[in-house]
Amino acid sequence: MKQVDVLVIGGSAAGIVAATTSRNFYPEKKVALIRKEQKVLVPCGIPYMFGTLESSDKNVVPDTVLENGNIELIIGEAVSIHQENKTCKLADDSEIRFEKLIFATGSTPVRPQWLEGIDQENVFFIPKEKEYLDKEAKQFAACNKVVVIGGGFIGIEMADELVKAGKDVTIVELLPHVLSLAFDEELASRAEDALISRGVKICCGKKVKKILGNGKVGGVLLDNDEILETDAVILSVGYHPNSNLAKEAGLAINKMGFIKVDEYLRTENPDFFAVGDCAEKFSFVTRTPKRTMLASTACAEARIAGMNLFKLSTVRSFNGTISIFCTAIGEDAFGAAGVTENLANERGFEVLTGTFEGVDCHPGSLPGTHKQIVKLIASKDSGIILGGEVFGGKSVGELTNLIGFMIQNKTTVDGMLTFQIGTHPLLTGPPTAYPLIKAAEVIATKRHMCLC
Amino acid sequence: MKQVDVLVIGGSAAGIVAATTSRNFYPEKKVALIRKEQKVLVPCGIPYMFGTLESSDKNVVPDTVLENGNIELIIGEAVSIHQENKTCKLADDSEIRFEKLIFATGSTPVRPQWLEGIDQENVFFIPKEKEYLDKEAKQFAACNKVVVIGGGFIGIEMADELVKAGKDVTIVELLPHVLSLAFDEELASRAEDALISRGVKICCGKKVKKILGNGKVGGVLLDNDEILETDAVILSVGYHPNSNLAKEAGLAINKMGFIKVDEYLRTENPDFFAVGDCAEKFSFVTRTPKRTMLASTACAEARIAGMNLFKLSTVRSFNGTISIFCTAIGEDAFGAAGVTENLANERGFEVLTGTFEGVDCHPGSLPGTHKQIVKLIASKDSGIILGGEVFGGKSVGELTNLIGFMIQNKTTVDGMLTFQIGTHPLLTGPPTAYPLIKAAEVIATKRHMCLC
Repeated sequence: MKQVDVLVIGGSAAGIVAATTSRNFYPEKKVALIRKEQKVLVPCGIPYMFGTLESSDKNVVPDTVLENGNIELIIGEAVSIHQENKTCKLADDSEIRFEKLIFATGSTPVRPQWLEGIDQENVFFIPKEKEYLDKEAKQFAACNKVVVIGGGFIGIEMADELVKAGKDVTIVELLPHVLSLAFDEELASRAEDALISRGVKICCGKKVKKILGNGKVGGVLLDNDEILETDAVILSVGYHPNSNLAKEAGLAINKMGFIKVDEYLRTENPDFFAVGDCAEKFSFVTRTPKRTMLASTACAEARIAGMNLFKLSTVRSFNGTISIFCTAIGEDAFGAAGVTENLANERGFEVLTGTFEGVDCHPGSLPGTHKQIVKLIASKDSGIILGGEVFGGKSVGELTNLIGFMIQNKTTVDGMLTFQIGTHPLLTGPPTAYPLIKAAEVIATKRHMCLC
Repeated sequence: MKQVDVLVIGGSAAGIVAATTSRNFYPEKKVALIRKEQKVLVPCGIPYMFGTLESSDKNVVPDTVLENGNIELIIGEAVSIHQENKTCKLADDSEIRFEKLIFATGSTPVRPQWLEGIDQENVFFIPKEKEYLDKEAKQFAACNKVVVIGGGFIGIEMADELVKAGKDVTIVELLPHVLSLAFDEELASRAEDALISRGVKICCGKKVKKILGNGKVGGVLLDNDEILETDAVILSVGYHPNSNLAKEAGLAINKMGFIKVDEYLRTENPDFFAVGDCAEKFSFVTRTPKRTMLASTACAEARIAGMNLFKLSTVRSFNGTISIFCTAIGEDAFGAAGVTENLANERGFEVLTGTFEGVDCHPGSLPGTHKQIVKLIASKDSGIILGGEVFGGKSVGELTNLIGFMIQNKTTVDGMLTFQIGTHPLLTGPPTAYPLIKAAEVIATKRHMCLC
């Protein structure tokens, strides 16, 4: 029987990072990674295969990182795990014995079986499977009209790419705005404006009653009895954690279906870890369970699991998910970290917010200057930053990461006011009106008035 | 006699931020700002007036921020200050009485009088004066060849803009590389490559002996007796703090010529503050005096002075300059925060460094992807990040600010390894190989080996 020190199940972002981190921290250990797929897609790049990238082959994670790390790659399907024997059985009946196991089994698109008409031709999902998506892309070629059900990140990115490819696209979203979990109304409505200006139709606050058609999609019936005629439907209404393998091995699963883990990403059995979409999550800010599934969060968890496999470290533990998102619609980019104002209020925080509208270059007369808006949400009591939302240009991704880091470090408004920055005409907002600091100043002024 | 609560002397970045912060924190106080200039230039935008912006009028700071803040603007020159009476005399003999005074008097280009030939026509400096620079721009129009003496940020940005405007430009730098104070050799040589690819000639490790010509520049004589023929010379060899007004008022000046200040930016007299280029600076990391003159640093100081004018706060004090720089050369951007490896060693730190080469989009096949390199410098002993250098695309500015914030918060390598990020194909590096975390991992692995 094959014997390894570390066995990782799953070859997407979380699996790769778990394996490479194990390798870096424990160079003497034998590390192997099992995955089903011949080729692994860059998960966040999937929407861009349908427009910008033109082909899924340009969206493949190269295996060189595993090869260079001397990580054994096993293409196969893990079908069962034996906790006590510490063995994993594959679909071809072979077995592998391990010292430590990391579940990085990912997630699968939710298929709402209550939705009538879901099993027809041209009803598509966005799983992370190259073959399925290649077939889907071919079928899209014959479709002119597409309805995207679900206005989360995947939904809006798919919609934006499909209009780019010349399709007539409508997003149907149950909530009053797209991206409502990441943004409050101010920025969510800007994202809608950006989508509309790119040609996407948006239909918010509407529930889908039924997918119409005779075996092949013909339309979508809404709960106000409106019918959207369409050739195809994309269902992007969330993902389920792939936790069956762990469950069948007898490990605890939480109420939402995720594998239960602690701060070191260990399951109940300290030799078994779980990371990424399949692993339990809770909010860094609100401390309540979460469903966040992001490659970036998955990688943070995987890194921590990899470091703690054989030796625990309190300074290398995971203290909850900050939920840092960013996306781009044409030249507009949007980012969010931590909680929205809505969520903070809902969860019982008393907050103050500050919003500042500036520019991402300076002077604003420079070519390529983009408006930049920062909204910050801080605890009224302590001044600690709980969340932030950003609208701007290409620098939004890293600016959002900066806000995320501030949240993770429990930075206060005062910490932001004394924050030293570097600025440059072509790269950032002006030193006199750097939007992040100006938004903090708005909150500081409000707190100052409260304290007087 | 006019009477105000807060008088700010100087109308550039530091002055504006000092005045607006005073206004925000002490809304009941009367704030006035004196400046000499009719119009104030965006200081960092000055090099871009010579190419990209086409005119200095596009690089003016609007006075609306003062007007909106109900800050009285006085165009005039402060000629003397009386400490005990708390009065300021202007060139027109009028006087203003104040409660608190903030010096934000800026800096003036160094004129190395030992350099023979410096007083000729077509020897230019880069002060922050619109009229001088407008005249300079006109004179440039008639010049084809330009030699820039000094390869710091101003020097290279001027050179890059002038080649863009069709000039034949050579940079002469005394040190072995341009930008040596901000970057170690790896990144400095990349900046040189970027400049060369844009058509700039670079001549490093050479001293200028004499500026040749008969009253009008004809050439530059180097210490190896080489002659560079040229129509014009730009001297960008540093700036002197404008501290005379404070000195004549009897306030202490340090050995480098800066007005001495404490953590609250107060001079010896607690009613007198100094911020920006004229105020004393010391390094956050090495704790030694510095000459850093950056609008962004100036604004951080000004904000802190403004908040502490009438009420001190230990959480709103200044703990040394982190020196965060960024610049762009064509599509390439460069950023640095904290100390270089060279400086850290020179100052007595034992450091470990980690460098990672990745991409700023993912997959790298996406159009617009730029190589991204991060170098980190950490204390071997504590793992605390002391410095960072970045090469990449448009997101370099905010990524450098993120590193700056990490330095300011004494973040350790472990803090970086557990850092949660958000990633997006079009906006950031990949979650599996985000260069900042990967560079930290290189250091962590080295430390791990030391500790074994």
